[in-house]
Amino acid sequence: MSNYPSPRATGATGAAAGAAQAGTAATGTTRGRDEAALILARCDELATHTSLPGGVERVYLSPHHASVNRLAARWMTEAGMTTWQDAAGNQCGRYEGFDPGAPALLLGSHLDTVRDAGRYDGILGVLLAIAVVDRLKRAGVRLPFAVEVLAFADEEGTRFGATLLGSRAAAGTWDTAWLDLVDADGITMRDAFTAFGLDPDRVAEAARTTADTVGYLEAHIEQGPYLEEADRALAVVSSIAGARRFALTLTGVAGHAGGVPYHRRHDALAGAAEIVLAVEKEARDRDCIATVGHLQAYPGGVNVIPGRVEFSLDLRGEHDDRRDEVWLAIQATTAEVCARRGLTIEATETHAADAVVADPRLRDVIRDGIAATGDTDPMTLFSKAGHDAMAMADLTPWAMLFVRCGNGGISHHPDEIVDAADVAIALDAFEAAVRGVASEGAA
Amino acid sequence: MSNYPSPRATGATGAAAGAAQAGTAATGTTRGRDEAALILARCDELATHTSLPGGVERVYLSPHHASVNRLAARWMTEAGMTTWQDAAGNQCGRYEGFDPGAPALLLGSHLDTVRDAGRYDGILGVLLAIAVVDRLKRAGVRLPFAVEVLAFADEEGTRFGATLLGSRAAAGTWDTAWLDLVDADGITMRDAFTAFGLDPDRVAEAARTTADTVGYLEAHIEQGPYLEEADRALAVVSSIAGARRFALTLTGVAGHAGGVPYHRRHDALAGAAEIVLAVEKEARDRDCIATVGHLQAYPGGVNVIPGRVEFSLDLRGEHDDRRDEVWLAIQATTAEVCARRGLTIEATETHAADAVVADPRLRDVIRDGIAATGDTDPMTLFSKAGHDAMAMADLTPWAMLFVRCGNGGISHHPDEIVDAADVAIALDAFEAAVRGVASEGAA
Repeated sequence: MSNYPSPRATGATGAAAGAAQAGTAATGTTRGRDEAALILARCDELATHTSLPGGVERVYLSPHHASVNRLAARWMTEAGMTTWQDAAGNQCGRYEGFDPGAPALLLGSHLDTVRDAGRYDGILGVLLAIAVVDRLKRAGVRLPFAVEVLAFADEEGTRFGATLLGSRAAAGTWDTAWLDLVDADGITMRDAFTAFGLDPDRVAEAARTTADTVGYLEAHIEQGPYLEEADRALAVVSSIAGARRFALTLTGVAGHAGGVPYHRRHDALAGAAEIVLAVEKEARDRDCIATVGHLQAYPGGVNVIPGRVEFSLDLRGEHDDRRDEVWLAIQATTAEVCARRGLTIEATETHAADAVVADPRLRDVIRDGIAATGDTDPMTLFSKAGHDAMAMADLTPWAMLFVRCGNGGISHHPDEIVDAADVAIALDAFEAAVRGVASEGAA
Repeated sequence: MSNYPSPRATGATGAAAGAAQAGTAATGTTRGRDEAALILARCDELATHTSLPGGVERVYLSPHHASVNRLAARWMTEAGMTTWQDAAGNQCGRYEGFDPGAPALLLGSHLDTVRDAGRYDGILGVLLAIAVVDRLKRAGVRLPFAVEVLAFADEEGTRFGATLLGSRAAAGTWDTAWLDLVDADGITMRDAFTAFGLDPDRVAEAARTTADTVGYLEAHIEQGPYLEEADRALAVVSSIAGARRFALTLTGVAGHAGGVPYHRRHDALAGAAEIVLAVEKEARDRDCIATVGHLQAYPGGVNVIPGRVEFSLDLRGEHDDRRDEVWLAIQATTAEVCARRGLTIEATETHAADAVVADPRLRDVIRDGIAATGDTDPMTLFSKAGHDAMAMADLTPWAMLFVRCGNGGISHHPDEIVDAADVAIALDAFEAAVRGVASEGAA
């Protein structure tokens, strides 16, 4: 992050700009409440763009991906941005600074979802970013850098398995091998690009350069219970856990449920059950977190001993070395189970990311933004969930703001919820942080 | 079982009939080897009537059900039987006795399969029955009762979940509620009947009467390792285990794999893993056998804590009371797991059958049939697998013959195998048993 001059008001809206420059947030004002209500109404509207009847599912390069991009573009335009869809399908908007073509502070999150998702994961961050720019426009403020909003098209990896596709394209870390990944219907990503109207051979054009970038800020729901338990609205993120993911196949021998006595069974499901419980124990013992999210037994007949089980493993930890210890312990247990039960295991690592630490200066900018809303000693949280910021870390310094979500922090679930008052405070804090990047540059 | 006069030869084949009457089996003769080879070739031919590319799957009321019925009818006709398809889709053949219209000794098994099945489960019993009648015809022998071969159309329950549909229709224990069962494609059994060319409202016409029936004999592969371990070809069945089956749904709360710490998780899959291991332990401890054949976690995303797991339970025991104790113990463990993990369980019993015991006299007839092949002290086995005989037990006395299968007795699996020499011996024993029913009647 370089040094930048202070923001200055432009045009005829000097009075409003002056108020904003003084750092007085809109918390509790009618405007703040109206903006929060609009953001939540937009979350509801985006949730109607879904492939899941009665629920929310919106995946990369789908018709609903296209339709939410059009909506986001309209809202970006209303907030004073020029807009475009990049070569990876990310919807982008740019609000120029003092000088046209200046490097940009990037504000982003994602518009795709998991299956049967909530309405706020990713979405809220995109809409808060648009609302921050809308405030700058209304205040007539130009900053010493451009502000861009990036609505990433794939963070969850729901369709093709590989995650953070949108932010990796923007960060310039796209892997062309991903174009050969296949979705559940057998469609390659390459063909999905073409069907969507994008050229799969031009994805690299979505990459930003470090020189043209000031930094990356992301607001996101916490997806955990800690803010709710502490009765606070916002937190600053210290780091994001590195996740490792594996696709596992445990193979035994199928057989007749009545005919095969226990001493001759090679029951892949009984073995998998032992491994699922070992995953839980080994991770808990090391303050890591591990989840078997997918598991299915084959052939699946009620009277057939399972000959094969396919399952997934998601491993996270604040410290990469302890997380890797968990995987070693799981492997040891699996080997013992396989030897005892006459099974074989095949494990493929499908994702690996080391933990990333927020940029200290941008992290302090977020902290100061929260402090400006009245919470003078903001809570710091470590993120066990992955975020687009992990990919953007390869491009530019980053920091993140967490927003409390209710119901015990439930996420990736229709019961995901945020409070309108928290959204209003988050908007104030996020705006203050964006302005703070300019102020800090001037200090 | 009533008393019947001895068999007598009819027509021009008196010499062959005389040899057969003397009880001299064809074991080791060129004819026996040729017949066994023909039976195995027919197993191979039936295996080509499959809906599973590269494997075997043939389900009730499917086009392959129709085509194997046509094949079986042709082979029955060649063996001297009049043939018809009954109102439930079972393929039947009748070889008259001395007097046309006399009660019939029924020989049966099934032509349907599980998914990715072997080639002999059920099939071998039908083909042995046809071969026995073929021997009677070639020998010009008429018995004091008719002999009918019943090729049941559904024993496995692969398509609609409910099992023994063909034999239950024949036994007169068909439940009209089954017509509302739905297959994986959402097709009701009622519609499947119509599409197959049968009238669903006339299934009752498939029912036999006890008065018109002498008894029921079934040959079947063992589907277990005991004959192979004892180095014997055949066994007589003492009883068939009563099975209980349950469809279970364990419900927790889906959530983000990174965001939800362990103390707030309600992971349905971790709970299900505990239950799967309890199922194994409680059944083993009580000399019963229990299998979780189907299990799937939902929503199934790699980074989503499973909020729901659906699984099946198949429980069998030689003694109904011990089997029911296993279910009570599983329920107790499940309640404890649910309380500790914050889960709820829903269990629906989808099948319940008490253990059935073979008719002592017909059992001895089978034993004597085996003894006639040289194994003078035949092995007796209890069947943990269900068979059509369980349904036929409601209609008439029954007994069963088990045939060794190799590869450790593997079944419900493509590696299912039987030895041609064993098939030849089984044919001799089965023929001797059928003749024995007549001899015993005369004694």
